[in-house]
Amino acid sequence: MNRNLRKQNFISSFDFDKRLAPYDIAGALAHVKMLSKCRIISDGDAKKIIKGLGAIADDLKRGKSLPSAEDVHYAVEKELIKRIGVVGGKMHAARSRNDQVATDLKLYLKDEIKNIVSSLLSVQRAILKVARNNIDAIMPGYTHLKQAQPILFSHHMMAYFQMFERDIKRFKNCYDNLDESPLGSAALAGTSFPIDRGISAKLMGFARVSENSIDSVSDRDFATEFIASAAILMLHTSRLAEDLIIWSSDEFDFVKIAAQFTSGSSIMPQKRNPDFLEIIRGKTGRIYGNLTSILTILKGLPLSYNRDLQEAQIPLFDTADTLKDVLAVLSEIISSLKLNHEKMEEAFKNDYILATEVADYLTKKGLPFRTAHGITKKIVEHAIKNKKNLSELKLSEYKKFSGYFKSDIHNRLNIKNVIESKKSLGGTSRLSVGKQIAKAKT
Amino acid sequence: MNRNLRKQNFISSFDFDKRLAPYDIAGALAHVKMLSKCRIISDGDAKKIIKGLGAIADDLKRGKSLPSAEDVHYAVEKELIKRIGVVGGKMHAARSRNDQVATDLKLYLKDEIKNIVSSLLSVQRAILKVARNNIDAIMPGYTHLKQAQPILFSHHMMAYFQMFERDIKRFKNCYDNLDESPLGSAALAGTSFPIDRGISAKLMGFARVSENSIDSVSDRDFATEFIASAAILMLHTSRLAEDLIIWSSDEFDFVKIAAQFTSGSSIMPQKRNPDFLEIIRGKTGRIYGNLTSILTILKGLPLSYNRDLQEAQIPLFDTADTLKDVLAVLSEIISSLKLNHEKMEEAFKNDYILATEVADYLTKKGLPFRTAHGITKKIVEHAIKNKKNLSELKLSEYKKFSGYFKSDIHNRLNIKNVIESKKSLGGTSRLSVGKQIAKAKT
Amino acid sequence: MNRNLRKQNFISSFDFDKRLAPYDIAGALAHVKMLSKCRIISDGDAKKIIKGLGAIADDLKRGKSLPSAEDVHYAVEKELIKRIGVVGGKMHAARSRNDQVATDLKLYLKDEIKNIVSSLLSVQRAILKVARNNIDAIMPGYTHLKQAQPILFSHHMMAYFQMFERDIKRFKNCYDNLDESPLGSAALAGTSFPIDRGISAKLMGFARVSENSIDSVSDRDFATEFIASAAILMLHTSRLAEDLIIWSSDEFDFVKIAAQFTSGSSIMPQKRNPDFLEIIRGKTGRIYGNLTSILTILKGLPLSYNRDLQEAQIPLFDTADTLKDVLAVLSEIISSLKLNHEKMEEAFKNDYILATEVADYLTKKGLPFRTAHGITKKIVEHAIKNKKNLSELKLSEYKKFSGYFKSDIHNRLNIKNVIESKKSLGGTSRLSVGKQIAKAKT
Amino acid sequence: MNRNLRKQNFISSFDFDKRLAPYDIAGALAHVKMLSKCRIISDGDAKKIIKGLGAIADDLKRGKSLPSAEDVHYAVEKELIKRIGVVGGKMHAARSRNDQVATDLKLYLKDEIKNIVSSLLSVQRAILKVARNNIDAIMPGYTHLKQAQPILFSHHMMAYFQMFERDIKRFKNCYDNLDESPLGSAALAGTSFPIDRGISAKLMGFARVSENSIDSVSDRDFATEFIASAAILMLHTSRLAEDLIIWSSDEFDFVKIAAQFTSGSSIMPQKRNPDFLEIIRGKTGRIYGNLTSILTILKGLPLSYNRDLQEAQIPLFDTADTLKDVLAVLSEIISSLKLNHEKMEEAFKNDYILATEVADYLTKKGLPFRTAHGITKKIVEHAIKNKKNLSELKLSEYKKFSGYFKSDIHNRLNIKNVIESKKSLGGTSRLSVGKQIAKAKT
Repeated sequence: MNRNLRKQNFISSFDFDKRLAPYDIAGALAHVKMLSKCRIISDGDAKKIIKGLGAIADDLKRGKSLPSAEDVHYAVEKELIKRIGVVGGKMHAARSRNDQVATDLKLYLKDEIKNIVSSLLSVQRAILKVARNNIDAIMPGYTHLKQAQPILFSHHMMAYFQMFERDIKRFKNCYDNLDESPLGSAALAGTSFPIDRGISAKLMGFARVSENSIDSVSDRDFATEFIASAAILMLHTSRLAEDLIIWSSDEFDFVKIAAQFTSGSSIMPQKRNPDFLEIIRGKTGRIYGNLTSILTILKGLPLSYNRDLQEAQIPLFDTADTLKDVLAVLSEIISSLKLNHEKMEEAFKNDYILATEVADYLTKKGLPFRTAHGITKKIVEHAIKNKKNLSELKLSEYKKFSGYFKSDIHNRLNIKNVIESKKSLGGTSRLSVGKQIAKAKT
Repeated sequence: MNRNLRKQNFISSFDFDKRLAPYDIAGALAHVKMLSKCRIISDGDAKKIIKGLGAIADDLKRGKSLPSAEDVHYAVEKELIKRIGVVGGKMHAARSRNDQVATDLKLYLKDEIKNIVSSLLSVQRAILKVARNNIDAIMPGYTHLKQAQPILFSHHMMAYFQMFERDIKRFKNCYDNLDESPLGSAALAGTSFPIDRGISAKLMGFARVSENSIDSVSDRDFATEFIASAAILMLHTSRLAEDLIIWSSDEFDFVKIAAQFTSGSSIMPQKRNPDFLEIIRGKTGRIYGNLTSILTILKGLPLSYNRDLQEAQIPLFDTADTLKDVLAVLSEIISSLKLNHEKMEEAFKNDYILATEVADYLTKKGLPFRTAHGITKKIVEHAIKNKKNLSELKLSEYKKFSGYFKSDIHNRLNIKNVIESKKSLGGTSRLSVGKQIAKAKT
Repeated sequence: MNRNLRKQNFISSFDFDKRLAPYDIAGALAHVKMLSKCRIISDGDAKKIIKGLGAIADDLKRGKSLPSAEDVHYAVEKELIKRIGVVGGKMHAARSRNDQVATDLKLYLKDEIKNIVSSLLSVQRAILKVARNNIDAIMPGYTHLKQAQPILFSHHMMAYFQMFERDIKRFKNCYDNLDESPLGSAALAGTSFPIDRGISAKLMGFARVSENSIDSVSDRDFATEFIASAAILMLHTSRLAEDLIIWSSDEFDFVKIAAQFTSGSSIMPQKRNPDFLEIIRGKTGRIYGNLTSILTILKGLPLSYNRDLQEAQIPLFDTADTLKDVLAVLSEIISSLKLNHEKMEEAFKNDYILATEVADYLTKKGLPFRTAHGITKKIVEHAIKNKKNLSELKLSEYKKFSGYFKSDIHNRLNIKNVIESKKSLGGTSRLSVGKQIAKAKT
Repeated sequence: MNRNLRKQNFISSFDFDKRLAPYDIAGALAHVKMLSKCRIISDGDAKKIIKGLGAIADDLKRGKSLPSAEDVHYAVEKELIKRIGVVGGKMHAARSRNDQVATDLKLYLKDEIKNIVSSLLSVQRAILKVARNNIDAIMPGYTHLKQAQPILFSHHMMAYFQMFERDIKRFKNCYDNLDESPLGSAALAGTSFPIDRGISAKLMGFARVSENSIDSVSDRDFATEFIASAAILMLHTSRLAEDLIIWSSDEFDFVKIAAQFTSGSSIMPQKRNPDFLEIIRGKTGRIYGNLTSILTILKGLPLSYNRDLQEAQIPLFDTADTLKDVLAVLSEIISSLKLNHEKMEEAFKNDYILATEVADYLTKKGLPFRTAHGITKKIVEHAIKNKKNLSELKLSEYKKFSGYFKSDIHNRLNIKNVIESKKSLGGTSRLSVGKQIAKAKT
């Protein structure tokens, strides 16, 4: 590339900020209408500009592109003046690129947050579907990746429903926090034109007007909070991906990822690699990286606008794009998940996993939990030594350890019964999980 | 150190989680009251336990420490059983360390968020004080660290007020999001004891009960969101520190940091280094690092509880401690800030900084902004060539560039007048800044 | 805490830098000997100081602590002057705290790198031991956590040997890169005393003298490169921890972690959670966080010394401490690993994992690999359809797909033979793995 | 976009890995030559493949692109078979995409490291040029951004020379560490074909052959170490950018950035914003983010190949591209730097900055440094009280504080003399800086 061109490229943002064009035009339209209402420009001039901007917007929708320029703001203005002449320049009174870019980014982000919340709702619906369709499927619940207690598969999936519920909350909070129009802050100091920032804010759909013009052009909190929320979301998807990858290993073999979300060895048709889930897990790094980027960019920047802020757009755009892709794929992966019920039920290597039930049994009979605990430990040791399951020990054997045992003990030592007994709010019984599903509104 | 001891130390959390003791006891008290209300343990047993726990709590307040143990939960239980005997073990029915630690951490964090919000309010009050006391101080406003437009110092400081306002919102959102009791989720599956999680939640002051027990013991969103909010806050304090460090350089010399927040060369009494601000700026790295830590720890962890979660406590505690220290120091630094009014007013190297005013003047007379812009550029070039300030050019000189210039032009070319003209909402006029200050409720 | 005390604490480094005392004294001794040799202080004064410093060093070794001070440098000087009087102050000619702290940190780090390399060698020895002791153990090799090809367990472990080999290289490079004495750079500008920096450098054991005094007091590359190398090392240990955690799940059940490196449910004696490995995996977050910290601290700092640099010590010390702990534990975990040979051999669900061997067979007979590939795919489909293993298909069946098949095909379809056939350098045959082990010098 | 296309896009790497095509072909050529030498394929077949690959490589150089495919490896093979028929498939014996991609990435990175080292040498040459051309320029040296001691501007710039010298070392170490051919490791287990990995390694220019096939396909240390080295480099460029931005502020006004590396207000011709330097500073965030990305991606991945590794290519490519851009721009910015000698000399607000010289004077006369220090402090206080510079105090005034003062004291109190007196190795005297410059070989 020519040296001068490369130089220009180094600081030009047009390659990435051209996607802001619709928002730049929306901002310009609101600004011009306000200028006209406040008698800063004439109605006639305003009409010409509005018509010109509208035509550009239409052309963009039809796929036409803007002329190349240093940035999207110049590109829009250039195109407008080309179309309607020098009067187009009146649009720029009482604003600057500093408040313009903040406005564009916020309008863009408001749209993207809506898209992402909508994608999150799709993922939640997919979870609900797979939970409902497999409401009775049982499997071991894990702590430390060791079998800990029997649970319902649907219960495990609903844990992710809760995580995504919190993600939605966080994105909504992010939306509310950023819902302030910076337009009219001008370069940094405000303006002497008698503008009414409330009018343009309302026209663009902002809830409020930002209160300090220096802050308005220096602030990238909105982008940072958005990426931080995205990082937490990716943390969740990475855990879900990890769970599904482990479950689809030959050794666990609990689930089958739909063929279109795996990639195969072309030679071993039975081998289906969970590539899509691995890419989802890998993209966690991408978003964490974007968060590090924007935090680093903003660290220690003096007020007000510095060109470093331009670099903050790159992780922002990449994050929104990545989230939408990941959520779209994830939603379909979950929807198309097939369970291997047989393997899930057979997974329990033995029933020592029910030891807690024995201790609870004794506790309910009146023993302090810690004492019941001690007795149970001895019973399990006895069972292991005799290579028996807990359910295979006779009542007489139980009674040797404590007189509290009655004939109802064996009823408790059944995996399905144990699951059904966990009726506490949020617990793994079908009743409790059913309530979680019923409560979900998506 | 003895090899076994070192081994135990490697996984022991007591060194850092002992600070959770008051919260562990508060959780235990609520749990026991609930167990008794639900007839899971007797009133008599409950009373003994409650009395015992109360006594331990009192001793802790008096500075007594718990016996050493693997973690704070065992330490509390051990101490209780030592005091009231085996009945103490009844406290542990229908819970496990997995839901206990989640509960403790949330109770701890609720307190710390309150502390931090209160510290943020102090910083805001300090800003208001210094803004009010110096309401008329003028200085150059910067973009790209170059003089851009004249502003009020108070306007610049109020930009930080807005940042801290958003921080407060974020911490409050974080508080609301985490305000769900995980207690009663037990190890991961819930429990078969007929507990009422709402009762204990209410006793502990939680707004809601968490809805999925697997999620409840796996979730560290609350800590992650807290640290992410802290990172954004530190981003703000790093910018403020940077501004103040630059302003206190010998070359800018706008502000004087109070002696107790500088450290001196013992040999050059006039040299005062802004060490406290540098440490504040440096601690940004610490909090960013804590955020990377917790995100990394949680990435790709299968559900439900894994011991990795224990490591997540370290960045959490360190973040809360650091924030409180930083905000306390920052508040005092701002409060004790002295301005060098003379230097701030003299800082303007020339008045070309007022070029925008000339363009605005012409725009108000009816020229398109871009046209006015072009004329102004020529005037400034003329002024530079003739080594004159804009205010020193005669009306006749102005008229050579445009007939729109009238005798009122010189009135516009006065720095104080220019500042006063920026009356737009959020602008730098005394009127606008005054409104910002008046609106602040802290 | 008293407000002034807290303020002092905010910038005091003594709590963490006191560990540098032996290095501060070593630096002072070298400096004083040089000053005396260069006739800047008298032999008599030098002797007094050397004796005094030696006595302090001895006391420190015996566990005595220094008096509290703002930092370790003042503490040493204070103690010296207390012991030998005002002559102690002569030690400080031609140096400042700025070059002193850089010197101390480098001396400290040189020792720690030696410790860490030595710990890495221990881990490598543990790998060699477990590889040698289980040289014939076979298991599935994984890609995408799916069974891909049969391998030797020892081959898999030797992969980690290679990673740690690279870690050792990186730490040695880090050592070489930092091996330059900054002492004598003074505050930032050098000194007018006729010092010979080479003398003190040699006395401290540095390989070279740093070449620019401003750089010498501003530079923290050595700490950053060290932490970056540590992050890569932790990346390796996190992968090893993950492998071992998955292998010790009930479903895989390939390995048994020694009891002292697990923590149990006190009620289920058979349940051993791999807590130590989880903590190792979790501490990856800690070191990644430390890397983010130091990079953030140093970003955009103007030259030369700024107090922010003090904060860089915290992630440095924490990283060295963590590495030593992790490696010590890891070495013992590997040494005490027990394999479940039976489960490892039985793990192969079927022998389609040998499909590549069929394709290789045909390729060796002269078919292009891609053609051989296509034929093999059809054979595997045939086998799956008929619910047979590849080794169960008859020669006649093979011949239907290609005339190239001869009676030697069945000999190839044996897992042990397949492993033995991978004789390429670095391959999984016992021969190749044996060579890797033999080559290892630790 | 069509749903299936989007799905394929999600895991396709062709968009970014197509840049590896020349390296993929170079690897294939070496592999085929080795296969032929080892009699695994016939000379005739080898010749056809080599010719075909050569033709593709030539076409690529001429700007032709490969057919679209899932990844670059398939694209090359597809194109080859299209050109020379099914015999092209013979190229794939004894290798797999897993060792292929590792090989491609290492070949790519070896080239890029050479490019980057060459760019670093350019930057160093630019530094030497500006240092030589301004060898006598004096300015205040800073600690804590406060004037600390007078220095030569060339001395300050040479500090950056040292940083880049260390960067070169680090990149060279990175190059040496990665210089091992993974080719022939096949999918993960090695191969049963009688290959000689040394032959292909030599043909590709690798120094060594990797020693463990599982490690070879799992390892991305080379990319991680490269990005970590890049992060440290960007740390340096961010500091240099910060220094230059501060120096080009209106208040410091020490340097003038060449017009083509600033961007102006189109209205204020005198206002030149240091946008290029701000973008350089901002891109530090980008590279730090890339480091976080790759570290996160690799954390906790089980061996051997996982598709997550594909995501690691993105930060790798972006880092190499960014470094080359930044260094090219930086080199030109430094080369074209203009100093404002007048402002640099006038910057000293007073000469209390010379206090250390007074103390050194007394120390050289035989006083302990700390005592000399105490006396000097009193002299400075006396001077400040009397509003005099140190050089303005009379000898009689000096003698009141100590009898050691002689008439030569005033000679010491001259900024240029002070600079010239710092003749210690690495010091700021022209002699010492001259030696640094002379020693530099670039």
